[in-house]
Amino acid sequence: MIIDIHGHYTTEPAQLFAFRKAQLTSGNATLAAISDDELRESVEPNQLRVLRERGGDLMVFSPRASGMEHHVPDASIANAWAQASNDLVHRVSELYPEHFAPVAQLPQTPDGNHAGVIAELRRTITELGFVGANLNPDPSGTWAGKPLTDESWFDLYEVIQELDIPVMIHVSTACNPNFHTLGAHYLNADTSVFMQLLQSDIFQRFPGLRFVIPHGGGAVPYHWGRYRGLSMRNGWQDPSELLTNVFFDTAVYHQPGIDLLTRVVPSRNILFASEMLGAVRGADPETGVEWDNTLVYVKGAGLSEENERRILLENALEVYPGLAARVPAVF
Amino acid sequence: MIIDIHGHYTTEPAQLFAFRKAQLTSGNATLAAISDDELRESVEPNQLRVLRERGGDLMVFSPRASGMEHHVPDASIANAWAQASNDLVHRVSELYPEHFAPVAQLPQTPDGNHAGVIAELRRTITELGFVGANLNPDPSGTWAGKPLTDESWFDLYEVIQELDIPVMIHVSTACNPNFHTLGAHYLNADTSVFMQLLQSDIFQRFPGLRFVIPHGGGAVPYHWGRYRGLSMRNGWQDPSELLTNVFFDTAVYHQPGIDLLTRVVPSRNILFASEMLGAVRGADPETGVEWDNTLVYVKGAGLSEENERRILLENALEVYPGLAARVPAVF
Repeated sequence: MIIDIHGHYTTEPAQLFAFRKAQLTSGNATLAAISDDELRESVEPNQLRVLRERGGDLMVFSPRASGMEHHVPDASIANAWAQASNDLVHRVSELYPEHFAPVAQLPQTPDGNHAGVIAELRRTITELGFVGANLNPDPSGTWAGKPLTDESWFDLYEVIQELDIPVMIHVSTACNPNFHTLGAHYLNADTSVFMQLLQSDIFQRFPGLRFVIPHGGGAVPYHWGRYRGLSMRNGWQDPSELLTNVFFDTAVYHQPGIDLLTRVVPSRNILFASEMLGAVRGADPETGVEWDNTLVYVKGAGLSEENERRILLENALEVYPGLAARVPAVF
Repeated sequence: MIIDIHGHYTTEPAQLFAFRKAQLTSGNATLAAISDDELRESVEPNQLRVLRERGGDLMVFSPRASGMEHHVPDASIANAWAQASNDLVHRVSELYPEHFAPVAQLPQTPDGNHAGVIAELRRTITELGFVGANLNPDPSGTWAGKPLTDESWFDLYEVIQELDIPVMIHVSTACNPNFHTLGAHYLNADTSVFMQLLQSDIFQRFPGLRFVIPHGGGAVPYHWGRYRGLSMRNGWQDPSELLTNVFFDTAVYHQPGIDLLTRVVPSRNILFASEMLGAVRGADPETGVEWDNTLVYVKGAGLSEENERRILLENALEVYPGLAARVPAVF
């Protein structure tokens, strides 16, 4: 069995876009009815087809990351937007419980809106059986807020720890023209957050936190020696000490990248992910392999059977305990 | 012969710090006399010792990157600061012409100060024989300015092209607490600028520009497949098309990183660099190799003799034509 821990609902029905547009225009919006058939049609020929073709089984599935748009400051708009988006991925996961496990968008705003975030965490995780959430380290989209290690985040960590879910550290649309959302902002966030964690004692304070850093950890594994050397010079913890609480996914779209990731980061800290259908589409004309078919790269990385099984399945079940309840047949 | 294209004067005499402090306090400052012996004492036991111990010959040498502090808005302060800093690296290079080739700090400010930048470019390159300059893509330190591909930069590119020098794309101190200067901001800048270039036609407009992206290109080689896939999806040029004008250095501080870099990026686009004495100090306790002894990693990367010679020497002479005039014995 193969679990892909990083997929977004990037094929949403048009009604969701219309809802968002109405929200941003008038502040108020009603989501038009979306039938189950429409939901099926949105994933059957897309994520579900690709998952099946590639031999995947279950995808951890959250609303479109760039669409979270936490920079919009109104908390009530953020709450309604997260609820509508989460309800849709929940419905998809109920239609295909063996193929999609839902992960929540949180109604963060530049000011925080932690009351709304905590309410949506409890609603999705406790009531609806979501297995995790995406936490945006830069709700402003311009990095106007505080690092994830600032105590202003701690009330959220209390709840996340209590719920025993992992959070994926995932920014949304960049609101700065220097940073292309998919080609720079996402990777910069991954890198920056790892560096924030390296200087902090956050996992001593919250030992139950589990952070998944996507896109192969941004620049981190490529510069692992830099982080080790910086830590030694500055008297910080060694980066390996973060690996009780920090995990990287495999959304890295070529063989050399996955080879580096699996060489540098212990297998127990790597979770299989493709982020399809996401930033890249199509296949490498030189190899015929679709860019985001990361299973090919993981299979090509020369891993032991045990390590490959960890990356493709077992780590996901450990990091996302909610998966076991949803997919009891796994055990 | 080995040329290290990325070193900063991080062992400056105390007088330079006092000058800077006076500048920032009163707006006016006079640099106290610094003797040649003091300059010798600042580099002999430091960069020069390490260069010699490791078998290096010549280092391309610029003022401390984090000290450029282009976020300070006053143009006259920026001009005086760049001049003082550049004069010192020039003097070091005159004391050791066979070991140090100077590269200029530019007096950028958040508003640009292009008149001052162009004047300092002409003074250092034409009058003093500097072989390149460091161009800060984020003089504000908060990414408040425009991407390097915006036409507001074009007057500088005209001059840089005319002078036939490469520029290293190098930010200074981050002015945002989310970004650790050495562990996040530097790498994010490298990644972000590559992405800016990928979407632009800047090298069609300025075919003579040569940009060196330091720190192994930030996250770029690790995510080369992501850039190829994004380009294909969006109809941009392939990232390989940038390689006529874009070069990466080897300031990546572990063997797996250099292995990835040399596997993904053609050898003609990689320039040897250590950035010593820079972000990291000390040695990996597991291997005994000093973190920034990148020569060990390059030698350990399994390159052909020809490719190794390109990376260690020949590419530097091609990308920095001023080196030939300073080191005629090379030929």
